[in-house]
Amino acid sequence: MHAYRTHTCGALRATDAGKTVRLSGWVHRKRDHGSLLFVDLRDHYGLTQCVVAQGAPGFDTLDNARPESVVTVTGEVVPREGSTINPKLPTGEIELRVREVTVQSAAEVLPIQVAGEQEFPEDLRLRYRFIDLRRERQHRNLMLRASVIASIRRRMIDQGFTEFQTPILTASSPEGARDFLVPARNHPGKFYALPQAPQQFKQLAMVAGFDRYFQIAPCFRDEASRADRSPGEFYQLDFEMSFVTQEDVFAAIEPVLAGVFEEFSSYSGTKREVTPAPFPRIPYDQAMLEFGSDKPDLRNPLRIADVTEHFAGGSFGLFAKITASGGVVRAIPAPGAASQPRRFFDQLNEWARSEGAGGLGYMTFEGGVGAGPIAKNLEPARAAALRDAMGLKDGDAVFFAAGKVEDAAKLAGKARTRIGTDLGLVEKDVYRFCWVTNFPMYELNEETGQIDFSHNPFSMPQGELEALNTMNPLDIKAYQYDIVCNGIELSSGAIRNHRPDIMLRAFEIAGYGAEVVEQRFGGMLNAFRYGAPPHGGSAPGIDRIVMLLADEPNIREVILFPMNQQAEDLMMGAPAAVEPARLKELSIKLDIPPAKTGAAGPKAS
Amino acid sequence: MHAYRTHTCGALRATDAGKTVRLSGWVHRKRDHGSLLFVDLRDHYGLTQCVVAQGAPGFDTLDNARPESVVTVTGEVVPREGSTINPKLPTGEIELRVREVTVQSAAEVLPIQVAGEQEFPEDLRLRYRFIDLRRERQHRNLMLRASVIASIRRRMIDQGFTEFQTPILTASSPEGARDFLVPARNHPGKFYALPQAPQQFKQLAMVAGFDRYFQIAPCFRDEASRADRSPGEFYQLDFEMSFVTQEDVFAAIEPVLAGVFEEFSSYSGTKREVTPAPFPRIPYDQAMLEFGSDKPDLRNPLRIADVTEHFAGGSFGLFAKITASGGVVRAIPAPGAASQPRRFFDQLNEWARSEGAGGLGYMTFEGGVGAGPIAKNLEPARAAALRDAMGLKDGDAVFFAAGKVEDAAKLAGKARTRIGTDLGLVEKDVYRFCWVTNFPMYELNEETGQIDFSHNPFSMPQGELEALNTMNPLDIKAYQYDIVCNGIELSSGAIRNHRPDIMLRAFEIAGYGAEVVEQRFGGMLNAFRYGAPPHGGSAPGIDRIVMLLADEPNIREVILFPMNQQAEDLMMGAPAAVEPARLKELSIKLDIPPAKTGAAGPKAS
Repeated sequence: MHAYRTHTCGALRATDAGKTVRLSGWVHRKRDHGSLLFVDLRDHYGLTQCVVAQGAPGFDTLDNARPESVVTVTGEVVPREGSTINPKLPTGEIELRVREVTVQSAAEVLPIQVAGEQEFPEDLRLRYRFIDLRRERQHRNLMLRASVIASIRRRMIDQGFTEFQTPILTASSPEGARDFLVPARNHPGKFYALPQAPQQFKQLAMVAGFDRYFQIAPCFRDEASRADRSPGEFYQLDFEMSFVTQEDVFAAIEPVLAGVFEEFSSYSGTKREVTPAPFPRIPYDQAMLEFGSDKPDLRNPLRIADVTEHFAGGSFGLFAKITASGGVVRAIPAPGAASQPRRFFDQLNEWARSEGAGGLGYMTFEGGVGAGPIAKNLEPARAAALRDAMGLKDGDAVFFAAGKVEDAAKLAGKARTRIGTDLGLVEKDVYRFCWVTNFPMYELNEETGQIDFSHNPFSMPQGELEALNTMNPLDIKAYQYDIVCNGIELSSGAIRNHRPDIMLRAFEIAGYGAEVVEQRFGGMLNAFRYGAPPHGGSAPGIDRIVMLLADEPNIREVILFPMNQQAEDLMMGAPAAVEPARLKELSIKLDIPPAKTGAAGPKAS
Repeated sequence: MHAYRTHTCGALRATDAGKTVRLSGWVHRKRDHGSLLFVDLRDHYGLTQCVVAQGAPGFDTLDNARPESVVTVTGEVVPREGSTINPKLPTGEIELRVREVTVQSAAEVLPIQVAGEQEFPEDLRLRYRFIDLRRERQHRNLMLRASVIASIRRRMIDQGFTEFQTPILTASSPEGARDFLVPARNHPGKFYALPQAPQQFKQLAMVAGFDRYFQIAPCFRDEASRADRSPGEFYQLDFEMSFVTQEDVFAAIEPVLAGVFEEFSSYSGTKREVTPAPFPRIPYDQAMLEFGSDKPDLRNPLRIADVTEHFAGGSFGLFAKITASGGVVRAIPAPGAASQPRRFFDQLNEWARSEGAGGLGYMTFEGGVGAGPIAKNLEPARAAALRDAMGLKDGDAVFFAAGKVEDAAKLAGKARTRIGTDLGLVEKDVYRFCWVTNFPMYELNEETGQIDFSHNPFSMPQGELEALNTMNPLDIKAYQYDIVCNGIELSSGAIRNHRPDIMLRAFEIAGYGAEVVEQRFGGMLNAFRYGAPPHGGSAPGIDRIVMLLADEPNIREVILFPMNQQAEDLMMGAPAAVEPARLKELSIKLDIPPAKTGAAGPKAS
């Protein structure tokens, strides 16, 4: 007989009755019924009820074993009868009558419990993560993560992608966030950087002639932690393709994402509907208009409309004035809301003020005419035209956000979310995907009056060199696109600018001379001078995908050994002080700023 | 028609004749036949011959395009006829009659050539790795690597393993090599370390209740580069299993390794034979005796034998003296070597001297008796007994390595390799696997006279606590094992010591007090106090596996973007100096040792 087990703790069934078997696992729960001791033995695969009678060999051993001790039990599989059958447990039709017990590892008193639903402070959980992970939810989450990643890999390979490992000790990259630095022992005064993303390497892989690259890639950013961002490291499904248009990129990744979400759509217990491929494509301008956001949450059926024309020159003075000075009025429909109590409208108005707006005007429709404070001051024909344009009817309401385009769009977007939620209109148990496309290449920096890149300077401008040379920069769109699911941005991507001439011109418009570009991005530019294919890709965040599927709001719940929000690994004790001799070897020394009077804690200035 | 391609450059066949198609790729080779210009267009998938007539549209464009420019060509698929068919090329039955050409990316004059067999200096190749990788051998090697890794993943998942990502920013680990350190910006004076291996994390994953973990894991060691070791980072197939004996570990990984090697055994052109599972198990003591090495190369049929008894008290004075003082005599058979010229024996003798030995004595057998300098001085009965014990016959020779056990074993091992190679006995086109088992737990430090750990202090000693308490430490074996293929160690592994009591005792024998152990390895010890399963695993090197399959002696040939031997990334310019402000943020400053007079180059002392 095997030293530790003939079966796992999830394996035995009624058909195994009569067999002599051996199981190993953790003492999950003990119930002492006087003459009988029941022990739920747990391993990775499940739970099996073991029973031992007082006086039988092994009784004292099991009786004395603390919860979470690891034991090996040998005995006979016995069928359970009648009400003792546990239909919730795959092994619930049998129990193990114990004849022999060996303690493999005796547990001390536990700092956190494994069985049961008790909650524990996060720092304690992270310090004892090796116990925390034994709990059902944590164990399931991490198994989900592994299955999701394995599924993504399989699907990417099926789509003709090849996985490569790009360097982790590399050069500083122009991604915008802070790099982690690594002193190079044999090169005093020099440092490696950990990659914020393998962006340059994947583009170089395309220049090197590989056609469809992907990687479940570790990425490193020295940024503050957030609920959806782990400090330090995170993973993305990094991919890139050669000789593709934007639509080719979409067509390649949509079945992967839709397939993965479909595959795991029942994880939370209820089957969730997933947007089938192809996902809706929403141009950036439309997204900002209809959703007031470049991360449209399509679970919310409300669509914002521009109703500026209905107020321009009208008798409602405030909006007429705003439109006259170049502002806009955006309208958020609120179907059926006319019957809401006054409090509903007042609370939304107060909420808008708390968001820094003047308020949130509204109109209701009853008996064929508009009602409410704005309607009182607006020509009835205008109210009717507005109602007809928005397809509203009696019993509906509509809210207004007026002001400068960006301000009105932003407020309208938030109001849409709030109104949709308050009215219970937001779909549940669905994953609604869309692409946001046609991002502007440039934007006006209001402080400096200069033209800045809107997002990624390395995206290809639509219209290429001709557009750069002939169009108003603020009108130029880029081949840049985001994948959004339920209002959460999973990734940014782009068709890249692979042409040095177009890149230099694009940077020139944003005020960067050729020398600066050559100096800062010379590596990529240089590579593009030896035959570069048109290429593009994206990089959906793995951790966010798993968070969505696991329905966990905190990223640390889907990471095996996460750091805490202060970027500390409490279990391993990282970061830590090191011997001065080690620093000397690295040709560095500490340069710790003097503590400020009254300053407390470990944070640097 | 698609903007870039209707087909890849490897897709078109005779059945496509008559179609109008579009291809994109790199101008691989051009042949100007006066009125006709032939262009081999290359992409990731293959080569297609394109032809354009002088005066036709696109002729001038292709004529002017330098090799490695990226172009899109549109035209008609035309069957080739008779001798113009190229049977070596999958697309060799057709060519593309070009009607339209677009240059996507014009190449400048190339620093290294892609077409052809010319060799280039490694530094140039690494600086322009994005061009180097377009060459057939490099491209194939990297695709092999990707396929091998994908195959390993699939096989591990099929064996019930789950892949997890362990932290990369973590604590310093007691692996023996130097860590890379990462200053922690928000924790002045503290550092993360990059993991030398996920050893502690995988053991903690077992303690956390996961049963079979694996990871294609990036590992980081700040060590000097070697042909088979990349500076900085490398990958290993890290795996660990709970509730297993050593044989369970072997049974789990053997089908993965044998399967992968079998799958890719024809990569180099000739089908190579692969040891089927189960692999031979060779105890360490036997390996040191028969192979003179703990990395037995089973392709070499020669086996070393201990022939001490045949010389002890005999008339060959030198060996009699050695055996009398506790030394040994090891014999390496050389079948059929009696007929070798004197030079063969002299050269081996010289070689042994160059290895620091006194020489390599030998005996030949002819006409039923021993011959040669040693035989002259040895009793014929002893020579005959030796010959019979080793199964030698007329025409064979035998070489002798005598001295202290370790010295004789080592010399015999090298001589075995040398003799097997010189006599052409080493098998070709095979992958011969074996396990080396039963490594000693401890060894005597000859300098200090103390007992040291032989290999891994965290392995479980065979016999556990009782062995530690009752046996001579130097006789205790560990559940530690290596996987060896063709004389190359692919990995070390072990059944781990999961018991704090046994671990403290094991360290005590090696002279470490409990406080020291708690201080240095407290994290693991602590985890083992809350219920730890018996567990074990190993971690075969991915890069070495791919090197073996690709038949490449240099690890950089199987890495996408390798650093050079000085741990520099010449393409990206890493490591590099950083702004003083960045260092200030990290609370460190440079501490560069003054240059020594006459010292040159960037190496630190």
